[in-house]
Amino acid sequence: MTTVEPNRVRVSLGERSYDILIGSGLLTRAAAHLKQAGLSRRGVIITDATVESLYAAPLQAALHAHGITTGLLAVPAGESSKSLRQAHRLLEQLPALGLDRKSFVMAVGGGMVGDLAGFVAGTYLRGLALVQVPTTLLAQVDSSVGGKTGVNLPQGKNLVGVFHQPRLVLADTDTLRSLPERELRAGFAEVIKYGAIYDADFFAWLERETAAALRLEPAAITRVVRRCCEIKGAVVSQDERESGLRGILNFGHTIGHAMEALADYTGLLHGEAVAMGMCAAAKLSVKRAGLPAGEAGRLERLIAASGLPTRLGQKYEMPALFEAMRLDKKAQAGQVRFVLLKRLGEALISDAVTEADVQEVVHECRG
Amino acid sequence: MTTVEPNRVRVSLGERSYDILIGSGLLTRAAAHLKQAGLSRRGVIITDATVESLYAAPLQAALHAHGITTGLLAVPAGESSKSLRQAHRLLEQLPALGLDRKSFVMAVGGGMVGDLAGFVAGTYLRGLALVQVPTTLLAQVDSSVGGKTGVNLPQGKNLVGVFHQPRLVLADTDTLRSLPERELRAGFAEVIKYGAIYDADFFAWLERETAAALRLEPAAITRVVRRCCEIKGAVVSQDERESGLRGILNFGHTIGHAMEALADYTGLLHGEAVAMGMCAAAKLSVKRAGLPAGEAGRLERLIAASGLPTRLGQKYEMPALFEAMRLDKKAQAGQVRFVLLKRLGEALISDAVTEADVQEVVHECRG
Repeated sequence: MTTVEPNRVRVSLGERSYDILIGSGLLTRAAAHLKQAGLSRRGVIITDATVESLYAAPLQAALHAHGITTGLLAVPAGESSKSLRQAHRLLEQLPALGLDRKSFVMAVGGGMVGDLAGFVAGTYLRGLALVQVPTTLLAQVDSSVGGKTGVNLPQGKNLVGVFHQPRLVLADTDTLRSLPERELRAGFAEVIKYGAIYDADFFAWLERETAAALRLEPAAITRVVRRCCEIKGAVVSQDERESGLRGILNFGHTIGHAMEALADYTGLLHGEAVAMGMCAAAKLSVKRAGLPAGEAGRLERLIAASGLPTRLGQKYEMPALFEAMRLDKKAQAGQVRFVLLKRLGEALISDAVTEADVQEVVHECRG
Repeated sequence: MTTVEPNRVRVSLGERSYDILIGSGLLTRAAAHLKQAGLSRRGVIITDATVESLYAAPLQAALHAHGITTGLLAVPAGESSKSLRQAHRLLEQLPALGLDRKSFVMAVGGGMVGDLAGFVAGTYLRGLALVQVPTTLLAQVDSSVGGKTGVNLPQGKNLVGVFHQPRLVLADTDTLRSLPERELRAGFAEVIKYGAIYDADFFAWLERETAAALRLEPAAITRVVRRCCEIKGAVVSQDERESGLRGILNFGHTIGHAMEALADYTGLLHGEAVAMGMCAAAKLSVKRAGLPAGEAGRLERLIAASGLPTRLGQKYEMPALFEAMRLDKKAQAGQVRFVLLKRLGEALISDAVTEADVQEVVHECRG
């Protein structure tokens, strides 16, 4: 076996800058990557019950063999573990592990684990170094990068959290082989989003190569993860705390989040909701931002080609859908904001979308 | 950091810079100060059961009269409310108040309230604007400034928290009139600390004027609060996250915290523990940092003149005391660090103090 130098994406945030390493076999060399990032002291691995045996326990053993001692804490799998209660439980277990301010927290798993463990890392001893080890496509291209951490309250998602940038991200594409096909496809919704909002060339490449990437052909999937991390890193570098540009990352999410809320976060994957939300947002973009109808069609076809839904189910009714958008924490004083496309590769944030516009588009998206 | 006018201290932290306003009658003009700081949207006041009727409820009414709507949440008085459990309870009550990312959290009370409410402000919606309204001397000169927030775990103090700088601090010296005398005196331990570590002239002024300040004569107490806030602001501006200089603020705290832990945080006020800790640290400074014995004597006399203890009780035994220091979260890899004085007004951080040194000094401090 030859060792291939991993792809390296640098996220520039001054003294909080960090590297994202992307490639095959990264987990087997994790100790070396940690040491290179200055993390050789004691740490804790936080994971869920599914990922624990697959990746977290072998990783703990591999680190131990290289002299890095870590505790291993697992929460039940599933979004319901992304709670203040689980964060509380984890935080109360940390003092017994003998961590100090130079120790690290390693999040091994999907988005739920990354957000929960990130919040724990951001608050224990007022902030420990965080290493993200995303094992799903969604986490590799989105949630592990950018420093948003958080847990849900009964009243809403991500209502409690902190901005806490990782010290290092290890995106090992081998881990995607254990991902259920439906989850892999759901992750593609975010991939398509990056092309749509930021990079028309990448979008065109996806139109040709999505099938190869979905088959996890190494060159294709590595390029997918790398380009998405580059785009997210570039956006976050310009607007770490979402006062402006970073908002474009929410393309498809305004309607998508509302659908997730109405579905009570069951039966619908985040990526599936975003896929439908992007189709609706593309139609709004044709109406309100001058997106050529042909480009909206290309977006819809790429979403469909990735095996993702493009049509809203009958259960999403106005005005309940619009009301759910108004309650989203991104709304300000009840004003709903939309990310629209001027063209493929270029997004803008708009306050001009009315409830009537949304009603019309929701109706079309059922047709 | 520059002082713009006598009762305004600016803490310079780039885009996180903020003003501390100090003086009499500030609370009656709170609405105007909030608006000046750009905070006219909805907010929540967090306080404790004691301060609620004294200051928080009248403040809520005064803000309401000026068109600023706030919720009011009170926790039981006392350090036991500074818990993850109370933070959790508060966070779960916030969604019903209709706050958005432009809303503010106002902490009205002593250090416990400021630390707890600051943690809530730092984590709700990934960080809301925080207004500190400290109503004790300790909170006015120390805990309300600098951005440290946190709650205790059963295993130790301040183990969970975030750095979250306030947007504004309103230190109304009128509120000190309702403070029990013992707590006022305890606050003076931190006041004396600032002189000892940073400003020999202020120390000399305190030697002359402490009695007037303890009587809350307006000019004297305002000067005390202002100078302490200037010093803390200057230190924090240079080292927000305590990677170096900020450590000098822990003068007297290494032994002091250990005494508090051994006393199980009951029967001993924080300032009283710091007072005894400073006397011991002064003796260590004579041994290890060249502090003239006469200056150590001046420090001990000023502490005594403020009605604070200078002698350790018999209950603080080695090696338990040293073991408690080792467990403190500021220790790294079990190494205990001490802040020592080279002379009055100049501090340094030392790793050179041995357990034998501490033993000797603890013995002397009983003598």
